[in-house]
Amino acid sequence: MIAVGARSGQERGMAGMTFSKRLENAWAATGSLVCVGLDPDLARLPESAGRGDEGLWVFLREIIDATASSAVAFKPQIAYFAAARAERVLERVMDYLATTYPQHLRVLDSKRGDIGSTADQYAVESFDRYQADAVTVNPYLGGDAVAPFLARPERGAFLLCRTSNPGARDLQDLPVGEGEVLYERVARLATGPWSPHGNAGLVVGATYPEEMARLRALAPTAPFLVPGVGAQGGDVRAVVRNGRTAAGTGLLINSSRGILYASAGRDFAAAAARAAAALHTEIAAAAK
Amino acid sequence: MIAVGARSGQERGMAGMTFSKRLENAWAATGSLVCVGLDPDLARLPESAGRGDEGLWVFLREIIDATASSAVAFKPQIAYFAAARAERVLERVMDYLATTYPQHLRVLDSKRGDIGSTADQYAVESFDRYQADAVTVNPYLGGDAVAPFLARPERGAFLLCRTSNPGARDLQDLPVGEGEVLYERVARLATGPWSPHGNAGLVVGATYPEEMARLRALAPTAPFLVPGVGAQGGDVRAVVRNGRTAAGTGLLINSSRGILYASAGRDFAAAAARAAAALHTEIAAAAK
Repeated sequence: MIAVGARSGQERGMAGMTFSKRLENAWAATGSLVCVGLDPDLARLPESAGRGDEGLWVFLREIIDATASSAVAFKPQIAYFAAARAERVLERVMDYLATTYPQHLRVLDSKRGDIGSTADQYAVESFDRYQADAVTVNPYLGGDAVAPFLARPERGAFLLCRTSNPGARDLQDLPVGEGEVLYERVARLATGPWSPHGNAGLVVGATYPEEMARLRALAPTAPFLVPGVGAQGGDVRAVVRNGRTAAGTGLLINSSRGILYASAGRDFAAAAARAAAALHTEIAAAAK
Repeated sequence: MIAVGARSGQERGMAGMTFSKRLENAWAATGSLVCVGLDPDLARLPESAGRGDEGLWVFLREIIDATASSAVAFKPQIAYFAAARAERVLERVMDYLATTYPQHLRVLDSKRGDIGSTADQYAVESFDRYQADAVTVNPYLGGDAVAPFLARPERGAFLLCRTSNPGARDLQDLPVGEGEVLYERVARLATGPWSPHGNAGLVVGATYPEEMARLRALAPTAPFLVPGVGAQGGDVRAVVRNGRTAAGTGLLINSSRGILYASAGRDFAAAAARAAAALHTEIAAAAK
């Protein structure tokens, strides 16, 4: 098992690199906007991967190796590891990514959010224990709660802004004055006063392309983490057209189940490779 | 180490008991409104407890044994365990509470929130892995995201409503139409359409007594989890006066650091016992 924090970005030659530069380099080095979501539902793992923690690890390592050439980022969803008592496997996955695919961005999807010293502890969990380049964060608690996740210039946080689920409307679309709705206020605060180091991104669901266009206008250069293509039905073409920056990047377009469970058989890794490559191709076509 | 989910509420004679009944019984059996927050900062543990996971466990078990007679609930804050790679200790703590103090409510403070199958996994983490009676949940993602945490009538969720930190104002106080601000809308949705089983509570910071009074008017019977007395400066008297229900209960008044670190010496458990008893006495006096 790894020693937590044994390797740091500094030792891998990323000393002093800001989060935006790190992202820019990742897009340039990989030529991809694909983010592979690692949501390992134990009930859906292929039998051929094996069982228990070791089976989970083998499954994820094979998925990573099979999809890395089509991807710019990997995004483990911590809930699946927590439900399976498999935090040690998540550490191993993050260490493998840091060592084997150092150019690829590591986004820990944990939607953390708390205040004061508790938020500090979550930042330690995200950035030190799991070596994440970025973490997803819930903005409801306000600027001081988000600050510990944005305090390190070389790490970033993607703040939940306009999510891809139907219930997103319940609060996020409420008008809050000054001609804004709540998710627009979040975008303005997150990419302005809340992030003096310029290292805040936004989570923007693919299922709402109009909202994405409004957010891109509001935050012309912020990175968007985009769930909701594939199983949730978001339109890749609309995401690319409405969400990319002037530089043609700015997007981490996530697919989880569509890649992980492309096949339930022995060929799961090859099927995942094809699914990730197909998404990459679809994105490239939409960008033309 | 425990087998996760080995004991259930059913085996402990709580079969079919709703969350509100469970809470009502806990208040009646203990005669207390005190919630002891378990936020074990490794840097602040007394040397006499020992080191590593075993030291952490000894510290928490002694705190629990010392304060149980003054408390109605225990609330471990998962961030501290996650930063310390000590999820196994949290399992042990929750199992100890379930076995030794079955009347006391177990609230897992994790401020979870996600959508669809991911939220399902967090519910498994909270209720099955950690045997929590209730979990804290962030409402930003909306009703469908909160639903998995409110789907079991015998378990509950405390939704973040008006938190105790300064940044709470950034979003929670924004006017959202119909004469409401955002935290009032959250309270109305949480205790209405979002909780068909009537098992939603609210997190309401002690540092904002006027807001607490408005929320009690809006939600006359919902349980409030109240952080912010002690280190954060909330006024116990105002909390009790403004937050209690007509039945004189409805409150879990949390203190963490004021109890856990009442002494850094060998007498930490005795000092914690005195601090918890003092809070209990202060609450009782305010209730008169």
